[in-house]
Amino acid sequence: MTNSNQKTDMSVFENLESEVRSYSRSFPTTFEKAKGYHMWDGNGNSYIDFFAGAGALNYGHNDDAMQQKLIEYIQSDGLLHSLDMATNARAEFLKKFNEVILEPRNMSYKIMFPGPTGTNTVESALKIARKVTGREKVVTFTNAFHGMTIGALSVTGNAFKRHGAGIPLTYSMAMPYDDYMDGYDSLDYLERMIQDGGSGIDLPAAIILETVQGEGGINAASFEWLKKVEELCRRLDIMLIVDDVQAGCGRTGTFFSFEKAGISPDVVCLSKSISGSGLPMAITLIKPEYDQWGPGEHNGTFRGNNLAFVTATEALDYWKTNEFSESIEEKSGLFQKRLYQFVKDYPELEGEVRGRGLMLGIASKKEGLAGQIAAESFKKGLIIETSGPDDEVLKMLPPLIIDEEGISKGLDIIEESIKAVLGKEEAKV
Amino acid sequence: MTNSNQKTDMSVFENLESEVRSYSRSFPTTFEKAKGYHMWDGNGNSYIDFFAGAGALNYGHNDDAMQQKLIEYIQSDGLLHSLDMATNARAEFLKKFNEVILEPRNMSYKIMFPGPTGTNTVESALKIARKVTGREKVVTFTNAFHGMTIGALSVTGNAFKRHGAGIPLTYSMAMPYDDYMDGYDSLDYLERMIQDGGSGIDLPAAIILETVQGEGGINAASFEWLKKVEELCRRLDIMLIVDDVQAGCGRTGTFFSFEKAGISPDVVCLSKSISGSGLPMAITLIKPEYDQWGPGEHNGTFRGNNLAFVTATEALDYWKTNEFSESIEEKSGLFQKRLYQFVKDYPELEGEVRGRGLMLGIASKKEGLAGQIAAESFKKGLIIETSGPDDEVLKMLPPLIIDEEGISKGLDIIEESIKAVLGKEEAKV
Amino acid sequence: MTNSNQKTDMSVFENLESEVRSYSRSFPTTFEKAKGYHMWDGNGNSYIDFFAGAGALNYGHNDDAMQQKLIEYIQSDGLLHSLDMATNARAEFLKKFNEVILEPRNMSYKIMFPGPTGTNTVESALKIARKVTGREKVVTFTNAFHGMTIGALSVTGNAFKRHGAGIPLTYSMAMPYDDYMDGYDSLDYLERMIQDGGSGIDLPAAIILETVQGEGGINAASFEWLKKVEELCRRLDIMLIVDDVQAGCGRTGTFFSFEKAGISPDVVCLSKSISGSGLPMAITLIKPEYDQWGPGEHNGTFRGNNLAFVTATEALDYWKTNEFSESIEEKSGLFQKRLYQFVKDYPELEGEVRGRGLMLGIASKKEGLAGQIAAESFKKGLIIETSGPDDEVLKMLPPLIIDEEGISKGLDIIEESIKAVLGKEEAKV
Amino acid sequence: MTNSNQKTDMSVFENLESEVRSYSRSFPTTFEKAKGYHMWDGNGNSYIDFFAGAGALNYGHNDDAMQQKLIEYIQSDGLLHSLDMATNARAEFLKKFNEVILEPRNMSYKIMFPGPTGTNTVESALKIARKVTGREKVVTFTNAFHGMTIGALSVTGNAFKRHGAGIPLTYSMAMPYDDYMDGYDSLDYLERMIQDGGSGIDLPAAIILETVQGEGGINAASFEWLKKVEELCRRLDIMLIVDDVQAGCGRTGTFFSFEKAGISPDVVCLSKSISGSGLPMAITLIKPEYDQWGPGEHNGTFRGNNLAFVTATEALDYWKTNEFSESIEEKSGLFQKRLYQFVKDYPELEGEVRGRGLMLGIASKKEGLAGQIAAESFKKGLIIETSGPDDEVLKMLPPLIIDEEGISKGLDIIEESIKAVLGKEEAKV
Repeated sequence: MTNSNQKTDMSVFENLESEVRSYSRSFPTTFEKAKGYHMWDGNGNSYIDFFAGAGALNYGHNDDAMQQKLIEYIQSDGLLHSLDMATNARAEFLKKFNEVILEPRNMSYKIMFPGPTGTNTVESALKIARKVTGREKVVTFTNAFHGMTIGALSVTGNAFKRHGAGIPLTYSMAMPYDDYMDGYDSLDYLERMIQDGGSGIDLPAAIILETVQGEGGINAASFEWLKKVEELCRRLDIMLIVDDVQAGCGRTGTFFSFEKAGISPDVVCLSKSISGSGLPMAITLIKPEYDQWGPGEHNGTFRGNNLAFVTATEALDYWKTNEFSESIEEKSGLFQKRLYQFVKDYPELEGEVRGRGLMLGIASKKEGLAGQIAAESFKKGLIIETSGPDDEVLKMLPPLIIDEEGISKGLDIIEESIKAVLGKEEAKV
Repeated sequence: MTNSNQKTDMSVFENLESEVRSYSRSFPTTFEKAKGYHMWDGNGNSYIDFFAGAGALNYGHNDDAMQQKLIEYIQSDGLLHSLDMATNARAEFLKKFNEVILEPRNMSYKIMFPGPTGTNTVESALKIARKVTGREKVVTFTNAFHGMTIGALSVTGNAFKRHGAGIPLTYSMAMPYDDYMDGYDSLDYLERMIQDGGSGIDLPAAIILETVQGEGGINAASFEWLKKVEELCRRLDIMLIVDDVQAGCGRTGTFFSFEKAGISPDVVCLSKSISGSGLPMAITLIKPEYDQWGPGEHNGTFRGNNLAFVTATEALDYWKTNEFSESIEEKSGLFQKRLYQFVKDYPELEGEVRGRGLMLGIASKKEGLAGQIAAESFKKGLIIETSGPDDEVLKMLPPLIIDEEGISKGLDIIEESIKAVLGKEEAKV
Repeated sequence: MTNSNQKTDMSVFENLESEVRSYSRSFPTTFEKAKGYHMWDGNGNSYIDFFAGAGALNYGHNDDAMQQKLIEYIQSDGLLHSLDMATNARAEFLKKFNEVILEPRNMSYKIMFPGPTGTNTVESALKIARKVTGREKVVTFTNAFHGMTIGALSVTGNAFKRHGAGIPLTYSMAMPYDDYMDGYDSLDYLERMIQDGGSGIDLPAAIILETVQGEGGINAASFEWLKKVEELCRRLDIMLIVDDVQAGCGRTGTFFSFEKAGISPDVVCLSKSISGSGLPMAITLIKPEYDQWGPGEHNGTFRGNNLAFVTATEALDYWKTNEFSESIEEKSGLFQKRLYQFVKDYPELEGEVRGRGLMLGIASKKEGLAGQIAAESFKKGLIIETSGPDDEVLKMLPPLIIDEEGISKGLDIIEESIKAVLGKEEAKV
Repeated sequence: MTNSNQKTDMSVFENLESEVRSYSRSFPTTFEKAKGYHMWDGNGNSYIDFFAGAGALNYGHNDDAMQQKLIEYIQSDGLLHSLDMATNARAEFLKKFNEVILEPRNMSYKIMFPGPTGTNTVESALKIARKVTGREKVVTFTNAFHGMTIGALSVTGNAFKRHGAGIPLTYSMAMPYDDYMDGYDSLDYLERMIQDGGSGIDLPAAIILETVQGEGGINAASFEWLKKVEELCRRLDIMLIVDDVQAGCGRTGTFFSFEKAGISPDVVCLSKSISGSGLPMAITLIKPEYDQWGPGEHNGTFRGNNLAFVTATEALDYWKTNEFSESIEEKSGLFQKRLYQFVKDYPELEGEVRGRGLMLGIASKKEGLAGQIAAESFKKGLIIETSGPDDEVLKMLPPLIIDEEGISKGLDIIEESIKAVLGKEEAKV
């Protein structure tokens, strides 16, 4: 499968859009339509999507049922915008989320609509933790990514993004994630630093973490480590915030990424795929005893994106039984088998398979290699990105609804691209 | 016009949603549909909308043409979510915004998609100003409102919202807005403070302002003051950011609220009504010489809300001629005439008419009165809110497409409510 | 009186001392001895001292009685250094300060030894105000000078000094001092900003001020303004800190500079002349109800400079009667008469007389003129400095024990220098 | 040797001095005189001094030669106070410090007088490092102590002291000191965190450290670790600041505590014993290429404590040959022998010998034990303190000029006190 060489004219973006644009540089074509795990550009080229809107399209593009609901809602003159007023669409989402997600898992949380983006749910989580505890500092981990607004950026690790703030980022303390200090227990260190009255490390309001770090390089924390973090939080009276924006909504196999770890975060951040359709939406789950907001203490114009509520409600159907969850595990198995094979077959990759569920990657020690493979894959019809501090990880986030054929074809393209890139590399030598 | 007394069951919101919810408390009913300047709840009550989603629905609810475009786009399997990849919907918006808005006004700006909310465009504006100047502090004004994330909240005046941060808010300097110091030139003061090497006020990166402060109490800065602010910025090499999130998109009579002031901001923030339909969207306009971002230095998952692009493009048709602008001025005249009459007829209000275009209000010196009138108006079928640091302003933000009948009916309800509230007040005595 | 032209060799300072040195540049000679209001350098030149160690030598150099006490103390093997252990020298100072200064003025304060410098007493004052109120921000005024360590520097106005911090200085709010906003009540503005829930100005922990700003340009606040500041503090529950480091110890005519204003600060900072002899010492006076320190919560190695205690105790003899105070007023009268005459006789100065007691100055609108007069005066045998954000004020801080002859001779030198400088200026034209 | 039980009246301190006082609580008597390593109180009790003004009296109390010089200087009407003007006393110190200390060690530094206290030299060091590098953050270590003003406190570890700030302490990053992470290379961790673009740890301006942490619990860094820190600084272009306030001036055996480690810090902070006599004085040594101050960019009233310069110059005689250095090593040997014996003989101490030179301690794992031994020792005529985050270390800082008899007697008192305290402990059981 090779796409036509006809190049899309990107001048409208180059001339009118800010230099900050990024993905239109990695994938230099103009997309026209998309369905399931396929995308098509204006030149008739088709692409398999292994990126899924950076995890915002777990249910694929343009799910039929969601499309139908959207059209019905629009045709009925349903409110598109309603701030945080009560609407039918909002009520239905609240009820169904409680019934399908929270109750069966014995989870008791108040649901907050903090504004429709990931950075917004993180900002609201940090605020409530600081309000509840009366403390300022928040522990974050190496390679964490939590968002671009100043509050969320302060707990984000990436130096390039941090530098963009233009002001010193404060009230956060970066600590080593899971096995960052090979052979040394990073939580022993964290606990000792917090407990030690002479360490210069103040008792934090909260610890915020991703169970699998997406932007940070597909680093999956062990369940044991997560359990230990929770214990530490309980012991020292620190709030635990899980940022499940990218790893949640089924991406790692269960609805919440932390279910198998058996932990109970005080605050959970969800966004990206929560709307089901890729429309902007976010929620913050807060244990009832910590829901100490005053009315409107955190607000925002787009807390009532009703089209998002409509598809979000529809998407919850996927979670009525265990079937969807099991299918993700199965597909993850298929993926991993091939990835391990790649690492074995192409030792020049100096590769390492990482991840959990359908949040997977191959880290390569060869500088720039992951990026070359991604670029080559795009030419061959696959949308795939890299992550990690040095873009050293080829990251795979296919829509969870992908089928075996899609997985095969996508992985075939990756393999061909690996060969092509390694061939070039050899040719250089 | 009185609505049925049948009370909607709000328990789903009370039980499941966070205590942070606010408008569902002021307007305790569940809305079902809306069209133009009308809204209907589940009990069959109808309401005139003088709130317009806090300025996000300038073109009213469910504009026919926009609905049609949405349905067509969905049916064509157009991409709903695309990060900041190139899509047809994005390209068309860029081109038409340039043709219809920027070029006819001789404005040259690069267009940034900073994430789909107002707070996001403000955060991006602050970042670029700090990056370009290498300075940290930003001058903001009394009663400013710029958003809820830490960067934007730092330049926001409201004490209750600021307190919600849980951390000290820094790198901002609050200065008196326009005529805040009655009889003393606030800009002379500001300039002197900045120029004076002994003042303790550092040279700021930028001045950020709203030309009419919506949340702050419908305070409209004079064009003369705005012009002087611009001159100050040029003289001292400070960047000028206009946050046109609420006052822009025609709200004050022209597309940008600063057109009649004749100023040329370095950065302009737009959100709320930019999508036309109330769908989440924001853009940041940056003068080309200041567009010094690195690729992806500010990013976000929902920079590509294509449904919003589709309706945003459609909405630009309103601006192809001067007609729409003129009609806003006319309606503003109708409104103001009645408001001045109210203030005259009901001296007990101790009222003052404020605002510009269709961003109007009556400030009352009587504590709590504006809130009582708003509550009474809701019972009588009008959606209206208050603003100002003490909620002392009855704020009117009708959809710009409202007709004479709507204006009349809405203002009649207000007058009836004034009477009812003042009657009660009297009765108390 | 002209000094020999024999130039001292300053190479030891130029070669070995850091570029940060300043007064050895303004007064380029090596001093050998000093007595009363006279200083002599190694070349046998004598100087009249109108600088008095920037206010640290109010009782002149090498007071006979103090010298005697020092020698006796040293010969008795009294402890020179004792941290904050109890010593006889410390006890005697405490008792006599209470008897001679506090009790007769009906003042009740606990005495803290915060480390022996002005910046240290300011840092301790800010800490206790923040601890007592639980708030962070402190209001400071334009042209304030409180010290060079980060806490004190944050409430200091001078841009050059602030820039030296290398980090953003925060938790302070600079407000206009006294009549800074000619014709507008700066305290009305301050109160309005603090009271206004929408101003972006948080309720501060404290207001810190100098009653006469020395470094800031010899700006003397009116007693009325000081009284109003105190009332504001009481009304809003803000702590009032008077930094009397330079204006205290008799400099303005009374022991505390605020006595005639009739105010009662919550915290008073004293240093400079408190030791009497120019030896390093500082105390912080704290109203008993606010003395909420834990033991050692603020400490420092040199809190027990016993030689300073010995001379400080001796110096208190000056304050046993009103005589000293009255003599300062008299001398101030002599000074002011001549200064007003200068301003009248030399209109080219565009001069303005400023100050109170023996903290006086002539501000000149002509750029650089004050500095030229000071430099010329040094050549003619007078030690005198400038202050103000642009060094526009010729500052006079003679030892309070100066006699009529000294005043005359010093002022004669100034007049000659004015003539010389203005002559040169004319010659230029 | 037991002191009389006659209790000094401490009421003057209790009534008049602030609650912040500390050592007058630990040593509740009023001291009258002192000589060498002896102190006497007003009741005729004598004490051996194992505290030496927390390291400010390395040459003992009231050295005969220094006393003589002081008296001569005072009698000659030498300037006591001179800001940073040139005086003979200042010139002589500069020349002799260069000749006796810097030149023989091939060290090239500019000498800055930053104000006369330890916290002041640290503040100046942080400022110049930030100015030179243009960066804000400074790496500090667990259990570091650098001073009480906000800049220095921000790089200090002690939670109680930090809490006293009343504001969040920022721009610092606490990292594990030397062997803090038993069995894991703390510098590997530090380097990895700084180098990793995803760690959230920004490139710092400087690393500040004490080679032996006094207040932090007599933790002596290995020379190997110090060397590695220097290499790290060179590799990553970070400035290295050694705070030698307590460990310098011979305390660890050599004039600078880092001489044997063979490192060359960019900035060195000296205070405490630099004046020789315990009079307030501090200097900051800055490599010439980093001496980028503007004149007066950091200043202070007491930069010219001439009495301190006089004794400081005299004290340098101790360093003209190696003899003094060798004698410290010898005495250290005597001390250590006994301390190791104590630990062995009294296993109930659960003791660990720590330190270097005459900066020694016994850490006890038994909560409160070190404090009890210190209190008992005081009763028996020994001045000794504890340190460490939990006051778990019995700290020994005798004057370096102590003789064998003094060492013996002091250690005998400690041994008796250990017995007494352990006996009581046993008795309790």
